[in-house]
Amino acid sequence: MAVKAVITLTTDFGCDDHFVGVMKGVILGINPDAALVDLTHGIGPQDVLKAAMVIGMNYRYFPEGSIHVAVVDPGVGSTRRPILVLAAGHAFLGPDNGLFSLIYREEGAGVRVYHMTADKYFLPVRSNTFHGRDVFAPAAAWLSRGIDASLLGGKIDDYLCLPTPFPPRREGGKVHGEVVLIDHFGNAVTNISRSDADGLASPSGVRPSLFFRGRQVPLVDCYAEGEGRGLSAVVDSSGLTELFVFRGSAAEDQGIAVGDPVELREDRPA
Amino acid sequence: MAVKAVITLTTDFGCDDHFVGVMKGVILGINPDAALVDLTHGIGPQDVLKAAMVIGMNYRYFPEGSIHVAVVDPGVGSTRRPILVLAAGHAFLGPDNGLFSLIYREEGAGVRVYHMTADKYFLPVRSNTFHGRDVFAPAAAWLSRGIDASLLGGKIDDYLCLPTPFPPRREGGKVHGEVVLIDHFGNAVTNISRSDADGLASPSGVRPSLFFRGRQVPLVDCYAEGEGRGLSAVVDSSGLTELFVFRGSAAEDQGIAVGDPVELREDRPA
Amino acid sequence: MAVKAVITLTTDFGCDDHFVGVMKGVILGINPDAALVDLTHGIGPQDVLKAAMVIGMNYRYFPEGSIHVAVVDPGVGSTRRPILVLAAGHAFLGPDNGLFSLIYREEGAGVRVYHMTADKYFLPVRSNTFHGRDVFAPAAAWLSRGIDASLLGGKIDDYLCLPTPFPPRREGGKVHGEVVLIDHFGNAVTNISRSDADGLASPSGVRPSLFFRGRQVPLVDCYAEGEGRGLSAVVDSSGLTELFVFRGSAAEDQGIAVGDPVELREDRPA
Repeated sequence: MAVKAVITLTTDFGCDDHFVGVMKGVILGINPDAALVDLTHGIGPQDVLKAAMVIGMNYRYFPEGSIHVAVVDPGVGSTRRPILVLAAGHAFLGPDNGLFSLIYREEGAGVRVYHMTADKYFLPVRSNTFHGRDVFAPAAAWLSRGIDASLLGGKIDDYLCLPTPFPPRREGGKVHGEVVLIDHFGNAVTNISRSDADGLASPSGVRPSLFFRGRQVPLVDCYAEGEGRGLSAVVDSSGLTELFVFRGSAAEDQGIAVGDPVELREDRPA
Repeated sequence: MAVKAVITLTTDFGCDDHFVGVMKGVILGINPDAALVDLTHGIGPQDVLKAAMVIGMNYRYFPEGSIHVAVVDPGVGSTRRPILVLAAGHAFLGPDNGLFSLIYREEGAGVRVYHMTADKYFLPVRSNTFHGRDVFAPAAAWLSRGIDASLLGGKIDDYLCLPTPFPPRREGGKVHGEVVLIDHFGNAVTNISRSDADGLASPSGVRPSLFFRGRQVPLVDCYAEGEGRGLSAVVDSSGLTELFVFRGSAAEDQGIAVGDPVELREDRPA
Repeated sequence: MAVKAVITLTTDFGCDDHFVGVMKGVILGINPDAALVDLTHGIGPQDVLKAAMVIGMNYRYFPEGSIHVAVVDPGVGSTRRPILVLAAGHAFLGPDNGLFSLIYREEGAGVRVYHMTADKYFLPVRSNTFHGRDVFAPAAAWLSRGIDASLLGGKIDDYLCLPTPFPPRREGGKVHGEVVLIDHFGNAVTNISRSDADGLASPSGVRPSLFFRGRQVPLVDCYAEGEGRGLSAVVDSSGLTELFVFRGSAAEDQGIAVGDPVELREDRPA
């Protein structure tokens, strides 16, 4: 039987090995009509928190009913549990190591988590090093064919939720944020969102100001407006404030790294 | 409704972020039967001309009716226009910054260009930094479902056409060309085509000679014929003359870069 | 006509050029319902042996009837033959340069090899530098539509089989192996399999020991068990012994390269 369904893959496997391709082979062997989408395989090795952010910030752009497989899994083959998460009309499969933390936080009581134990939905021979192929790919494929989540295992409540940098810390008239991601262009995405800025806006409607390394960074409306201004900031496509250099790499030009502090301040004349 | 159609994606997004995957999610949410093909995401950041060459040189290998989305878009969120181009039975969507210049040049009067303004075919909430996801992906998906181009916006004539390095400059018995692309293997593709060579061929049928940095480069029929010859040249799969080193990287071995001059001369004994 | 079939692609093309995307365009023009899977495009330039290992070790994870296209092809355009291999319910297309050596060795008498000569199943205009697009992609697409293998060409017996590092050399109570692959994580995969270890196990059931650069390497059951142990070994998802450093890169940390010797010894007290 073949059922149309979107299955996304997010891993730290990179694109130079066979790992991702083989997961797709296993899925298509079970559901030939699955539409496979690589969300990204460029997560840094074992960087569970980055994968959690990428998944949490993007799954809503996929159609309801999509199945998201995430494999950043240093504990593969040990006692860490394989889980299935149902939330907001989407399904998420991966190791229970915090990969779905943003979803737990956002969806709260709407989340159901299952410890997958029904090995009839896994490959018959399983390695201790590649559960993406042996456990998560086949379970996702069966799920895409319409089996009920409860067939895969029992519900659990003690799943692992990592501390995430959202929301940033507020204090008086300031929001203390940090760089959480560097993208392909060298743009430095922070955890300070548009609503953080709105929360700080003074009754008079004055827009708060962004500071990085003690200097105010001009907040513009699009990249091209940053032309000739050096380090600038823009609210990006995830609703987060992002440091950038027009036609340059903010990260390289200025040596910006994940974790660097950023501050939003009420804008009042000195 | 789902309609079988090929949608290709060409961007400067690289493969390490979520950008490409999210565009696919948006497309599949509108047309679950779209066949998505990555033409390449390895365009250098903001390198509009390279993307123009890659698209112009390759779209014909896709079936008629294919839809090509190109996003190399430093002006995203500014006043630059989103356009749809119809030519040669294919559709092209992207910013009006010259990305489709080779197509304008080749197809001439057969080209129709639309300024896309019908935001009912875009995502309801649009960022100022990622029109690949918010504008081009959904418009392409709707187009793949069969809506008429005219529903997306009105026709325009003042679209931007960039100067391209084709054809190369001719002067007397010489063709002055240049390196236009370096590929993954370090092969240096020039803008000198087989027909440029034919145009120079003397009435006696003598093949013209290729010169690089003042030295003649042997023109062979396939890579393997370059074995033991150092820098060699071959007419490649796009019909362009390409400098290569057998089992080596011409670009690295010889420090060749885009823009380096190459010369084709009538071959007459000194 | 469209027929559902999995077609995999394995090349040394990398992901930054148009090569892979164009092959997919050609395939979808012939069979719009082909499900295209990238096995990997990260094979090192011209590294036929690595591609042979990647294909041989992974094709079984794809559904029976899958068609595997492999293009690592330094001899493109020369006299090397394009072939089609049928074995174990799968089809393999590529140049006759040893790419399918592991399959010949494993499937033995069950292998049928055809020299593809029927150019009506190739593109009408063919380059001398890109048979992935001009020969292998269209032939694979036609095959996926159900044409008989014999229509593509005649059977041959003198196809090229490369020496492969499997099985490793045995001598007395030792197995002399070597590193055969380095993966994205810097794990060093050797040619010593679980069954090699079983073959050495003493009647008393004592497990043999792995030695690298004269020192015994602890053989653990999963990556996490290697925590705090430095260089460790595990039987990986291909059944091969793999050297790794938990949350590190064995290859980088220890300067391990393909070809480095590894030894398995009967474990007896000194």
